[in-house]
Amino acid sequence: MATSWGSLFQDEQQLEELARQAVDRALAEGVLLRTKQEPSSSDVVSYAPFTLFPSLVPCALLEQAYAVQMDFNLLVDAVSQNAVFLEQTLSRARTGSLAVWGHLCSFSSALVLLIAQEKERNIFDQRAIENELLARNIHVIRRRFEDVSEKGSLDQDRRLFMDGQEVAVVYFRDGYMPSQYSLQNWEARLLLERSCAVKCPDIATQLAGTKKVQQELSRAGMLEMLLPGQSEAIARLRATFAGLYSLDMGEEGDQAIAEALTAPSRFVLKPQREGGGNNLYGEEMVQALERLKDSEERASYILMEKIEPEPFRNCLLRPGSSARVVQCISELGIFGVYVRQGKTLVMNTHAGHLLRTKAIEHADGGVAAGVAVLDNPYPV
Amino acid sequence: MATSWGSLFQDEQQLEELARQAVDRALAEGVLLRTKQEPSSSDVVSYAPFTLFPSLVPCALLEQAYAVQMDFNLLVDAVSQNAVFLEQTLSRARTGSLAVWGHLCSFSSALVLLIAQEKERNIFDQRAIENELLARNIHVIRRRFEDVSEKGSLDQDRRLFMDGQEVAVVYFRDGYMPSQYSLQNWEARLLLERSCAVKCPDIATQLAGTKKVQQELSRAGMLEMLLPGQSEAIARLRATFAGLYSLDMGEEGDQAIAEALTAPSRFVLKPQREGGGNNLYGEEMVQALERLKDSEERASYILMEKIEPEPFRNCLLRPGSSARVVQCISELGIFGVYVRQGKTLVMNTHAGHLLRTKAIEHADGGVAAGVAVLDNPYPV
Repeated sequence: MATSWGSLFQDEQQLEELARQAVDRALAEGVLLRTKQEPSSSDVVSYAPFTLFPSLVPCALLEQAYAVQMDFNLLVDAVSQNAVFLEQTLSRARTGSLAVWGHLCSFSSALVLLIAQEKERNIFDQRAIENELLARNIHVIRRRFEDVSEKGSLDQDRRLFMDGQEVAVVYFRDGYMPSQYSLQNWEARLLLERSCAVKCPDIATQLAGTKKVQQELSRAGMLEMLLPGQSEAIARLRATFAGLYSLDMGEEGDQAIAEALTAPSRFVLKPQREGGGNNLYGEEMVQALERLKDSEERASYILMEKIEPEPFRNCLLRPGSSARVVQCISELGIFGVYVRQGKTLVMNTHAGHLLRTKAIEHADGGVAAGVAVLDNPYPV
Repeated sequence: MATSWGSLFQDEQQLEELARQAVDRALAEGVLLRTKQEPSSSDVVSYAPFTLFPSLVPCALLEQAYAVQMDFNLLVDAVSQNAVFLEQTLSRARTGSLAVWGHLCSFSSALVLLIAQEKERNIFDQRAIENELLARNIHVIRRRFEDVSEKGSLDQDRRLFMDGQEVAVVYFRDGYMPSQYSLQNWEARLLLERSCAVKCPDIATQLAGTKKVQQELSRAGMLEMLLPGQSEAIARLRATFAGLYSLDMGEEGDQAIAEALTAPSRFVLKPQREGGGNNLYGEEMVQALERLKDSEERASYILMEKIEPEPFRNCLLRPGSSARVVQCISELGIFGVYVRQGKTLVMNTHAGHLLRTKAIEHADGGVAAGVAVLDNPYPV
């Protein structure tokens, strides 16, 4: 991607002035984060890091990403409904066995229970959702897993109650990583999953999003098995896949490890859970593979072909740093909305995008990426 | 004023939860302040202190305040145009002599020069105005007095130029207190006043807002002299006046001082400039009057009958403090817009309100008021 802001990058004084204006505007528009020092308090806050300029994105790619989102919604649903596939895939990654509770009930109110962390720098993103719902007269209560295990309960119809109020929807903003679960939290999650409240996401949908499932989906015949008769959707999905390689014990895994050790710059080693920041590259990856290659532990990782986007220049704005024009790469995500009641599809659509951009820094001869900041696509 | 939120004041846990929601909402809506520690930086910011609940204001009083605002606009304009009145009034308060420049010109652009302080906690209030103007394609440049003296200039038609750009409007957010003027700043102000740019406010309008002028306006016959033939406006204005007493040398001043020394709880002693926080009450006032009464310095103060509003309860929210339900008093201000070209009145209207509320704290047997926070009137 080229940029058309080149001339603005030259004039440092103008760049600083634009940066000051942009930061004040971002703050005033609510692009906020709590501080690292005080993640439980809104006494002082800061802005979410962002790019001073939008980044150029080819129209065709943006349209492709939007178009394929509905296919991904269908695929994730198909995976989450396929208990056999999930169990087979994830048992190899050392998760426990899976039971999915299916139970429908109607609700006497429209209360949303937001499962929140105490330390939450990103609370303003959550508050925006609370405010949108409140404007539609839908109330949200924020509780921690600990509150659920102390004060949550089910009645004989598995209706969920919290502090005496019936809950219609449980929205998880905690519990995405194993490290976020104490024994007490697992019990609270179990209670929520057993209830007939709508879970966003339920445990099966959450597990469908693991890297291990992603890797399994790239194997020949898998999409055809999960989405029978939908050859066009499958073609659109497959066009977006990068190479993903299982490290399960066996010949296939041995071969993938051998390839990665031969050409480490072409691969990245990822733990099979969500959450970023745990990926291994270059020499670190080689050391990990050497350590893991004869152990069953290797099955909890996957190897991925490294995507090598063309870097471009942008100016990253972060609290405490002056405006920096650097070489960047971006990652585009599309939000999807999907509602199914029993066998009836109620809604399948996209709902906006998220472009995240990070500086590429050359370290140890490889490319180590910094933490991504918010960006906006400028379609060209 | 009574309140109808009484029941909410009882439940401390609910109050804390409401306070957290309100603070996050205020932050997300841009009710921001830079911190005391870093008033020149937007790296971390806080919220402007505010009341958790609106405060009850009788409809009739709110309407009266709005109705009289246009009269005040006319009065301030009349005072600012009356150089003789201003000079006579303010020379007794030891200001220099006054010359008002009148000069009209047309502008080739609509650039606004905002005179800003480097340390400005309240920048987000200013940015909101910048953004509103920018949405109308009117650009604002922020400069300090120091920048004006270094890079500002007038051409032979007294057009004002800043960094090579012609300025149509100068908007002062610095220079309201004598302490904000160095010699360099006075020279910059003089340059701006001499220019044909529209000043918001010009020096005469600014001087019309001093306490000394306010006191002079309360003297018999003054309103009639300034607004000839406008008896209805005068009646509306006078209905809002509290007792104001000159301390000029002479019998009238001696009598005012004697009254204040006899009944100190009924009076407050104010320096004749704007800016708050310098008022003297009770024993402090008595000591100051004893010290000043035989000195010409007393003319730079005025005595004011203390307004004794009925206290009411509200909950004040401030960064770093937990929600506090306290006895409060309020002050209502109405924003006015007034534009005149030569002798033609172009616009005279009101433009919203500002309700500020502060806790009353009982100290030294008197009432000392804390610093006011933002509030909203709830008309009843």
